[in-house]
Amino acid sequence: MELRLEEIATLVGGELHGDGSLLCRGANPAGQSTTEEITLILSPADAAIWNTQAKPALAFVTGSYQAEINVPQIVCNEPHLAFEKIVAHFRPPLGPKIPGVGCSPFSKVAATAEIHPTATIAEDVVIGERTKIMPGVVIMAACTIGDDCVIYPHVTLYERTEIANRVVIHASSVLGAHGFGYRQEAGRHVAKAQLGSVKIENDVEIGASVTIDRGSYGATTIGEGTKIDNQVMIAHNCQIGKHNLLCSQVGIAGSCTTGDYVTLAGQVGLKDHITLGDHTIIGAKAGVMDDCAGNQFYLGAPAIPYRDQMQIFALQRKLPEMRKELKELRKQLQKLAPSSDQPETTTKPISQNSSRGEAA
Amino acid sequence: MELRLEEIATLVGGELHGDGSLLCRGANPAGQSTTEEITLILSPADAAIWNTQAKPALAFVTGSYQAEINVPQIVCNEPHLAFEKIVAHFRPPLGPKIPGVGCSPFSKVAATAEIHPTATIAEDVVIGERTKIMPGVVIMAACTIGDDCVIYPHVTLYERTEIANRVVIHASSVLGAHGFGYRQEAGRHVAKAQLGSVKIENDVEIGASVTIDRGSYGATTIGEGTKIDNQVMIAHNCQIGKHNLLCSQVGIAGSCTTGDYVTLAGQVGLKDHITLGDHTIIGAKAGVMDDCAGNQFYLGAPAIPYRDQMQIFALQRKLPEMRKELKELRKQLQKLAPSSDQPETTTKPISQNSSRGEAA
Amino acid sequence: MELRLEEIATLVGGELHGDGSLLCRGANPAGQSTTEEITLILSPADAAIWNTQAKPALAFVTGSYQAEINVPQIVCNEPHLAFEKIVAHFRPPLGPKIPGVGCSPFSKVAATAEIHPTATIAEDVVIGERTKIMPGVVIMAACTIGDDCVIYPHVTLYERTEIANRVVIHASSVLGAHGFGYRQEAGRHVAKAQLGSVKIENDVEIGASVTIDRGSYGATTIGEGTKIDNQVMIAHNCQIGKHNLLCSQVGIAGSCTTGDYVTLAGQVGLKDHITLGDHTIIGAKAGVMDDCAGNQFYLGAPAIPYRDQMQIFALQRKLPEMRKELKELRKQLQKLAPSSDQPETTTKPISQNSSRGEAA
Repeated sequence: MELRLEEIATLVGGELHGDGSLLCRGANPAGQSTTEEITLILSPADAAIWNTQAKPALAFVTGSYQAEINVPQIVCNEPHLAFEKIVAHFRPPLGPKIPGVGCSPFSKVAATAEIHPTATIAEDVVIGERTKIMPGVVIMAACTIGDDCVIYPHVTLYERTEIANRVVIHASSVLGAHGFGYRQEAGRHVAKAQLGSVKIENDVEIGASVTIDRGSYGATTIGEGTKIDNQVMIAHNCQIGKHNLLCSQVGIAGSCTTGDYVTLAGQVGLKDHITLGDHTIIGAKAGVMDDCAGNQFYLGAPAIPYRDQMQIFALQRKLPEMRKELKELRKQLQKLAPSSDQPETTTKPISQNSSRGEAA
Repeated sequence: MELRLEEIATLVGGELHGDGSLLCRGANPAGQSTTEEITLILSPADAAIWNTQAKPALAFVTGSYQAEINVPQIVCNEPHLAFEKIVAHFRPPLGPKIPGVGCSPFSKVAATAEIHPTATIAEDVVIGERTKIMPGVVIMAACTIGDDCVIYPHVTLYERTEIANRVVIHASSVLGAHGFGYRQEAGRHVAKAQLGSVKIENDVEIGASVTIDRGSYGATTIGEGTKIDNQVMIAHNCQIGKHNLLCSQVGIAGSCTTGDYVTLAGQVGLKDHITLGDHTIIGAKAGVMDDCAGNQFYLGAPAIPYRDQMQIFALQRKLPEMRKELKELRKQLQKLAPSSDQPETTTKPISQNSSRGEAA
Repeated sequence: MELRLEEIATLVGGELHGDGSLLCRGANPAGQSTTEEITLILSPADAAIWNTQAKPALAFVTGSYQAEINVPQIVCNEPHLAFEKIVAHFRPPLGPKIPGVGCSPFSKVAATAEIHPTATIAEDVVIGERTKIMPGVVIMAACTIGDDCVIYPHVTLYERTEIANRVVIHASSVLGAHGFGYRQEAGRHVAKAQLGSVKIENDVEIGASVTIDRGSYGATTIGEGTKIDNQVMIAHNCQIGKHNLLCSQVGIAGSCTTGDYVTLAGQVGLKDHITLGDHTIIGAKAGVMDDCAGNQFYLGAPAIPYRDQMQIFALQRKLPEMRKELKELRKQLQKLAPSSDQPETTTKPISQNSSRGEAA
């Protein structure tokens, strides 16, 4: 499977800068690559991730030459499509493929694991000691599950999902389905790369009917000890920290990152590419549109610091009073200076919407 | 199954206007009926749909005589119950019924289709070429699935669901469950008609844990090329246009219609009976309470045009400042005209709520 | 299984006040206990529930001596952990346990019930007359299902779920999964007691992909005739009243109580421990932060009475106009009294947030 960088450059029709004889053994997105792998540098954000790491990768694919990064690079017109081709070389898609019935002879199940006969375990799956697989669970090819896990009925794990130890997944949750990423071509939506996977660290608990999508090229990750309530949605490429609490019906859009000990209350939504610092708390129903520093409590949609939002909630309820007061002040002013006969403030920009509610 | 109009009038105890000898071969709601079928005209909206079509139906059921529509009509006291009876004659309910194990001998599966042995395929199902049916999928009676589809584990298709070609449905999604429509009788909620189905056009992709409910009399429809993310809910009778993007956790209430190339961001909600024009974009978490013209971006709950909403969001954060300024202006005014000693604006209508937040 | 109160005090290392020779036959939370059972009194709320009942329990566990309650009590340092131990004695956890294939010989299925061979029915399950269990349903140990129910494909009922008569549960719903309750110990989240169950009364209908979590010690209950739409989440310990309508994507946090004939529109969220009176209506997308009296319509997040909220919605859209008017009044005032040269109201506390929207 390994390729020389010059072979990769040829594969994707890119322009190689640097030593083409180096051997590359894999491909992963920025922040997940090893020193034997090639990665993708597209944005200043990717470059920033690069600079925080000692030796982040053997080489990288990019759209325009990056003078300041001192490893081989392959410059391509369409770096996303090029990287997709490289990742697919190293990690060819395993699905969609109908598995056999029951437990594949090409899987490796620990002696003390218990698997219900109606579960489906595809080839190249590894299941650890004392793990329990309940009725109707479907585990697709090349998944690994650690020790002492419980996978409740009707859970589906798509290809290459990695589950560590002491993980509990409740009924009907789906890990590793395709991310919701499309580009338009000739008026049609075409799916972007769906070559990544889902990785769940130790001691994570996942509620019922949760969905966690696979990464585009690498892993969507849930950090150790994090607890996820029912009906939570975590989109592709998210990196959820350790010991988070994600309450019911939370929705996290693509490529978000949370620190450790983050709490998201019920029905919270995060825009894509948001970063939340350690110990951030987001109040129920909030909509997070910007990165949040840690150790703070945010509320509202768009979310702002809790105290500010509570003050705004209170003042919103004083709007009728404020409007009344404005009118009175104007009346008094006109008594004092009757000559100031400028016309009423125009209400046109507002009136177009005012049919949308019962105006006061 | 076919009936003369006079037979239908007798069946429902309605008053027939027009040629009772005409043969009727089916029944469908306004907008979905053929020229050999009877339909239902209740509201001016239904009549408007009628008028946009060349010859919309053979006849119709109604609650009061419609002089301006020139085909036979059957006037009934309870037109909904009457139409339900007629639809049930032409399309008798097929469930709830326990299917056999595995693939029914009365289904028709293409030679190149692949079906996992743990899937359930009930009678009168048709499955096209190269379609893959994963473990645990349940396909109830009289469903049709086209070519090159992939149906992931634990998907349930209720009776008469129609899936066209190249459709992907991810794990645990449910198509065709009963709509949430009830009428109250003697203090109890009684389910309305659940005689319709779900129809998915070509190249649609449906995420994991999506629910799309059957129509009341006709089909809930998803247009060609539309992509639906995880945990989206589409209620009964909705008509979703072509090439829409419906992001995660969107909820669309009953009888909504979207144009083509509509985008609904995460956690958006649509009230029932909403119509969105082509190329409408609704921002994350918005709540749509009114129809939206096309080619516009809306935001907020209730949703209004994006720019207006962003201005309001900004001004909400200025409320503390505005309130302070109001107080100062009043103070200055009182210095100028100390005689104006009217009492403070009463705050009673506000104070009843002010315990609900930390007032400033 | 029965224990004397003195034995219970020894089991939990608590201090017994009252007659230790009394025989105790069970344990249930405040409001669900019988006169032969021990209960838990922690808060003034629990004590209030106690006082509304004739003879609520044989005895109770508490954290500090309750002089005003005249039955035996066991005072413990950690009353939650003590009560957990007592409940676990009377109702030892039955899971997680892999059931056998198909219908357990230790279950009791009525002659006229129909069960699909791919369903899993664990031991000690009771299923009533004419009830239909569809493909892939998993019913764990000690569940009871009444007469004339329909359980659609891939529904999971965890241990001890109780379903009364004429109940319909649509595909992929999950009843009885663990509640989302954790306490922190040494920086890790540790699950609280998960010893309760789910109880569904007569004539309830539950949509697709609904999740209802088990109670901590007792039952999460859905009252007679209540209808629940798709993708609704009901958390641990909730007591939902009779004939409620819970629309799609509603989320109800732990320990909420609703009266009868309550309606929650789509995407509504309730904070934990909320109580809603009979005939309360909550409008779409509202976030309920406080108890609501009955016979009223609430809207908004935080939810307030409908009329007030509609007025606020309307006035929010007048904010640009109000701000303009404020500026004009100030200008006029300064013309009248140019000497009043106090500096502009500082905008610093606002400006820190103003990057979060397009300021006007």
